[in-house]
Amino acid sequence: MAERARPMSVAGKVMAILNAFAQDDVRLNLSEICRRAGLPLATGHRLVGELAAGGFLERVPDGTYRIGTRLWRIGSQAPAVTGLRELALPHMEDLYEATHDNVQLAVLREDRVLVVERLRGTRSVPVVTQVGATLPLHTTGVGKVLLAFAPPEYRERVIAAGLARHAARTITDADEMRRCLEQVRRSGYALTRDEMTLGASSVGAPVRDGTGEVVAALSLVARTRSADLRRLLPPLTTAARALSRDVERHWRARPETFSTERKTGA
Amino acid sequence: MAERARPMSVAGKVMAILNAFAQDDVRLNLSEICRRAGLPLATGHRLVGELAAGGFLERVPDGTYRIGTRLWRIGSQAPAVTGLRELALPHMEDLYEATHDNVQLAVLREDRVLVVERLRGTRSVPVVTQVGATLPLHTTGVGKVLLAFAPPEYRERVIAAGLARHAARTITDADEMRRCLEQVRRSGYALTRDEMTLGASSVGAPVRDGTGEVVAALSLVARTRSADLRRLLPPLTTAARALSRDVERHWRARPETFSTERKTGA
Repeated sequence: MAERARPMSVAGKVMAILNAFAQDDVRLNLSEICRRAGLPLATGHRLVGELAAGGFLERVPDGTYRIGTRLWRIGSQAPAVTGLRELALPHMEDLYEATHDNVQLAVLREDRVLVVERLRGTRSVPVVTQVGATLPLHTTGVGKVLLAFAPPEYRERVIAAGLARHAARTITDADEMRRCLEQVRRSGYALTRDEMTLGASSVGAPVRDGTGEVVAALSLVARTRSADLRRLLPPLTTAARALSRDVERHWRARPETFSTERKTGA
Repeated sequence: MAERARPMSVAGKVMAILNAFAQDDVRLNLSEICRRAGLPLATGHRLVGELAAGGFLERVPDGTYRIGTRLWRIGSQAPAVTGLRELALPHMEDLYEATHDNVQLAVLREDRVLVVERLRGTRSVPVVTQVGATLPLHTTGVGKVLLAFAPPEYRERVIAAGLARHAARTITDADEMRRCLEQVRRSGYALTRDEMTLGASSVGAPVRDGTGEVVAALSLVARTRSADLRRLLPPLTTAARALSRDVERHWRARPETFSTERKTGA
């Protein structure tokens, strides 16, 4: 049966409305919400009103809506993300203090890099990416790491879907990307130079759980001009290994707290 | 009309299910969810299934549920929280580097302190509070600041509701709390010593927006034994003032991005 032909349940409509805000735009008016959610205006109007009354959405004086603090608070209880964040934060603080560059922690979700935590390099290249934002896999240090250690069939699917150009030096050729990821697997780290944004470079390293599986990636993002990326590698890989040990310890003590969400796949 | 007598709409039921996770327990089984949400088991079962299919909840192998990464991602778009976090992060990093104590950023929501961001003092007292958690107003440095600068009628309402004891030195007497908050308003900072947890002390300072209104509080949490709290005051108040200037600048440039949510009130 065609999934799309089935009428949406009310819970499905509520999720569709909230999903409309998962993109980059933080403020949407009612007709934008309804268009994105695929809902008639009357239905959308009623449900958005209920969600605003419950604090899940917030009505801005100009008539637009945005995600409310209540939803932020409920979302912040997601253990798959917050557990990892809690383990990673001390290591990220150490990295920040050692380098003063941008420190990012990311996981693979829905064929994108999902930024789980970030410290801001106050004396480094400005990075606009916020926590909760997603980035392409093939243009970022964290993304290349996550892709390199993903199952081969998943990797091929991502490559086959096309490698969009984001900056002058984005790797858009499938074979070149395969060689690059092979190199990441061999060396245990990833480098990017002006592949996502002109002027910004990054180094990424894998974070593994108790089974050896790569569950996240840690990276430093620095100014291309000043960054001797290889100089950033020792602190980065040291921190990523220390975090992996913490994750493994935590995993052995409380395996049930780890995520069972599918990281790759359709 | 009695609000509670009205039957819950489906959107209301979905919100009730998600609200069940806003408390401290991150994993709940189906009957716990239904009890908290006030739903019959059959209804809860169907809606929880839909929310899990949509990635809003995640089913753990042991049969319990927890908040899914998708909801975390949508929630992380809440501008009232993330805008403030982005402005605060560099100042929090500076404070961390200067003191290596726990740095907290909090706002007032639903008569509690809501922790919006936290850096972990790796060489300080362990603080279990995570981002998204809530704390009492009267036992914490951030809470006393937020309460001291709230409208007088709101303050009195919180005091009248009772000041529960959390540790040996919690201020539970209404008049003593009034004097304490008066002192906070006069001095521009709050101190707590063993009032929330034995062994932990804190200093808090207000963060103001362009109108002079206190919109958040910044604090350092340190070990009582080692903390000369007055030594922590200069870096804390310096950072809080610098953040207030950033908030004011941001507020003048884009007033519409600031929260319109009610911080106090019923």
